[in-house]
Amino acid sequence: MNIVSEGVFVAPASSANVGPGYDVFAIALEKPTLKLEVVVKEGEGVAVEVVGRYRNEVPEDPLLNSAAKAASHLLKTRNIKKEVRLTVEASIPPRKGLGASGAEAAAAVFALNRLLGLGFSADELVVAAAAAEPGGHLDNVSASIFGGFVICLRDELGSKIISVSPPPDLGLIVVVPDIVKESTASARKALPPMVDMSAHVQVASRVGAAAAAVCKGDVRLLLRSVVIDPLVECLRADAGVYGKGVTRESLLEEKRLLFRRFGVAEVISGAGPSRLLLFDRRENAGEFGRRKVDEALAEVIHRLEKTGAKILETIETNPSPHGVRQIG
Amino acid sequence: MNIVSEGVFVAPASSANVGPGYDVFAIALEKPTLKLEVVVKEGEGVAVEVVGRYRNEVPEDPLLNSAAKAASHLLKTRNIKKEVRLTVEASIPPRKGLGASGAEAAAAVFALNRLLGLGFSADELVVAAAAAEPGGHLDNVSASIFGGFVICLRDELGSKIISVSPPPDLGLIVVVPDIVKESTASARKALPPMVDMSAHVQVASRVGAAAAAVCKGDVRLLLRSVVIDPLVECLRADAGVYGKGVTRESLLEEKRLLFRRFGVAEVISGAGPSRLLLFDRRENAGEFGRRKVDEALAEVIHRLEKTGAKILETIETNPSPHGVRQIG
Repeated sequence: MNIVSEGVFVAPASSANVGPGYDVFAIALEKPTLKLEVVVKEGEGVAVEVVGRYRNEVPEDPLLNSAAKAASHLLKTRNIKKEVRLTVEASIPPRKGLGASGAEAAAAVFALNRLLGLGFSADELVVAAAAAEPGGHLDNVSASIFGGFVICLRDELGSKIISVSPPPDLGLIVVVPDIVKESTASARKALPPMVDMSAHVQVASRVGAAAAAVCKGDVRLLLRSVVIDPLVECLRADAGVYGKGVTRESLLEEKRLLFRRFGVAEVISGAGPSRLLLFDRRENAGEFGRRKVDEALAEVIHRLEKTGAKILETIETNPSPHGVRQIG
Repeated sequence: MNIVSEGVFVAPASSANVGPGYDVFAIALEKPTLKLEVVVKEGEGVAVEVVGRYRNEVPEDPLLNSAAKAASHLLKTRNIKKEVRLTVEASIPPRKGLGASGAEAAAAVFALNRLLGLGFSADELVVAAAAAEPGGHLDNVSASIFGGFVICLRDELGSKIISVSPPPDLGLIVVVPDIVKESTASARKALPPMVDMSAHVQVASRVGAAAAAVCKGDVRLLLRSVVIDPLVECLRADAGVYGKGVTRESLLEEKRLLFRRFGVAEVISGAGPSRLLLFDRRENAGEFGRRKVDEALAEVIHRLEKTGAKILETIETNPSPHGVRQIG
């Protein structure tokens, strides 16, 4: 069957924005992950098969599938003629703000770069993978490629991804409700062209503080910096992007309560609807601390259920220190 | 004369904003500095004498002088009745965007806290000193109190200053033109209530990257992150705040040229008109590198003179690792 090369790869899911860092921050998650098997043959064309828990929600059409789109884009930019067969094991809940499509795209470009020896840098892989993302946004693919906590700088020289090892004491829980969002693209359209100057300054101050907190390993400062986003999260709540019954007011009230009572920072993961809970493992060690996190989680679930949502998954996870890896 | 306590203090000048970090970033400067002599007596009232190079430009009226305003505010918040005599040696060019008034206020509150044993934390001193600043902005006073590179987080819990040691290879030059700006307060009024979303995202991305760059000691990334500010600097140039002949277009063109040709990042210091040139001392070591910085400086001076401005001072300096200190 003239196989040129093959391999099995695993990419971490990711949570973009992390509060105020819209289009700037993302964090790679140890769980869930996505597995991608890649076979390269002589020939032409990209084909996809999707297996696994969420197989019915991930398209196999190569014009719609993110792994295939990213792979085709990469081959085209280098004018490479090969047949590529992708098998996606869909274990990241799709369209829930956990970077499922970004992880597919990241795994695909990482795999082809490795298998065909294309010599792309990690920054170039991010750009190639982002070509398959709505709005070409870099945050999820950057986290899935680099791992860790990423800061995306977009400037006149192109893009530069800064990956920082997240503080080892940063604990994470992902809550996935069954709320159906239209699409990330439509969530992006919910944002107005002009924003409030004072909200802008507050966001910039929180982003600067959060970046420093991650670099210094200061979990307490990180939680305080990211817990409120006065801009994009509020605008999207206003626009109903996070589901019925989630308003700007209810979201802020919930966040403040969780932070004050339990020391837990709740943010919307990407464009939602999943929630990411961040907490300090040191402060929440032992039975008492653990109970605080459990109570915070119960509160979040209770409030989501009150709006009529069901909880699909609750994932206790950690920041993933690494991005896509080859495992076979 | 019933002197209760006395001392001599030195506060560093500072450069706020550092490109995109409007109301968020500031950097303390090793030079110029401001000297403040403080005598506390039994009695009441705050009196100021101003000496030194810029004595004619700094008010001695305690209702207008920043050191006196900050001192009065501090005494009032603690309901302390003392007579305070301040002698300001004005060596920081006033109203040139170098935090002269912030350094005065910082020195005054630091001195009284020390001399009267008031037990204010550094964060509390920042708030007290900022009460004397237009718009209560924290950036300059934070840098003068903490030293180093500061990131100001303003959130629902109050304010939190993060001070980071700047990279030791970060070189700084301040260029002070004789352009007269109305006031920092009017420069703040030049900003519109709503700003462009895409500029907002670019600023947030640059602020996040710059904060990480400072924490990681990555001068090259810092320069790249701060060199362009698409928001406040451009809006103020549009509003004529930086003087005749300095437009958004001319400023951006000048910045791009300096960065590309000489590797120097030029930013407006605070609300201007001074310019802060940032460069990498490692890349600019030796005769050739030194010549590049000199050429960049000559270019900046040449362009300022072409708009009709004269250069009052050119100060080769460094980040100041420390804030206000008592020297006598």
